[in-house]
Amino acid sequence: MRRTERVELTTLCMVYEEDRVLLQNRVKEDWKGYTFPGGHVEPGESFVEAVKREVREETGLEIRNPVLCGVKQFPIEGGRYLVFLFKTEEFRGSLRSSEEGTVEWVKRSRLRELELVEDFFELLRVFEEPGLTEFQYTIVDGEWEAAVR
Amino acid sequence: MRRTERVELTTLCMVYEEDRVLLQNRVKEDWKGYTFPGGHVEPGESFVEAVKREVREETGLEIRNPVLCGVKQFPIEGGRYLVFLFKTEEFRGSLRSSEEGTVEWVKRSRLRELELVEDFFELLRVFEEPGLTEFQYTIVDGEWEAAVR
Repeated sequence: MRRTERVELTTLCMVYEEDRVLLQNRVKEDWKGYTFPGGHVEPGESFVEAVKREVREETGLEIRNPVLCGVKQFPIEGGRYLVFLFKTEEFRGSLRSSEEGTVEWVKRSRLRELELVEDFFELLRVFEEPGLTEFQYTIVDGEWEAAVR
Repeated sequence: MRRTERVELTTLCMVYEEDRVLLQNRVKEDWKGYTFPGGHVEPGESFVEAVKREVREETGLEIRNPVLCGVKQFPIEGGRYLVFLFKTEEFRGSLRSSEEGTVEWVKRSRLRELELVEDFFELLRVFEEPGLTEFQYTIVDGEWEAAVR
């Protein structure tokens, strides 16, 4: 018998250039604020192809060679929600926002001025620190707890 | 509504030291031959903790700082089978085999002399080439096709 869980598969990508990162001011209520572009992986779809497609749809840019930096995860009923975290500095094309939110290049020094999504800086750590690969929420005694490892 | 798939979550780890890699001569019929140690992720378990546990159970070694190198995947009914590929050269303890197979250090120059699992060298490429993060089987016109990207 297969040992499966119900898993929601998604991606995020940190597109960066010098001291700037590409962010989307996400309008959906469930995770609102400035965040990295990304989205769901379709059934059977490659993760690499999925992250390229999502960045194209949400930013207009064609990325190349996204590097897998780690995984974010949190529990859902019967399984978990997974976010594959990629980054790249290779891209071409013209910036174009989508209905999911406007996109813009943001200097790192300006990040603290923005209304970021709740766990933005934990994600940034996993993107950038080579020794970190996982950002996991677990539920302990009814409370959500975050761990980065 | 959640967009979930049925996913079987597993890990593999390339433990290495100079020109040698740690392999298990896997006895189970479903994927028999010399391969990297690893196994299933338990419900709710961290991927990093899972790979440490599996390496401990199968080799006797305590690993530190496993680095996520990529993902292997193939389709299963209603979803996919995922293998998180880690590597590390940080370990301590004494080598000890398990009932899943004997473990031994193998020089890279000797790999071709062994009865390796079918996709051993594709996995090795994803472990070692920084530009590769994914090894995916898909079913095209009833035939399994492999892609590395």
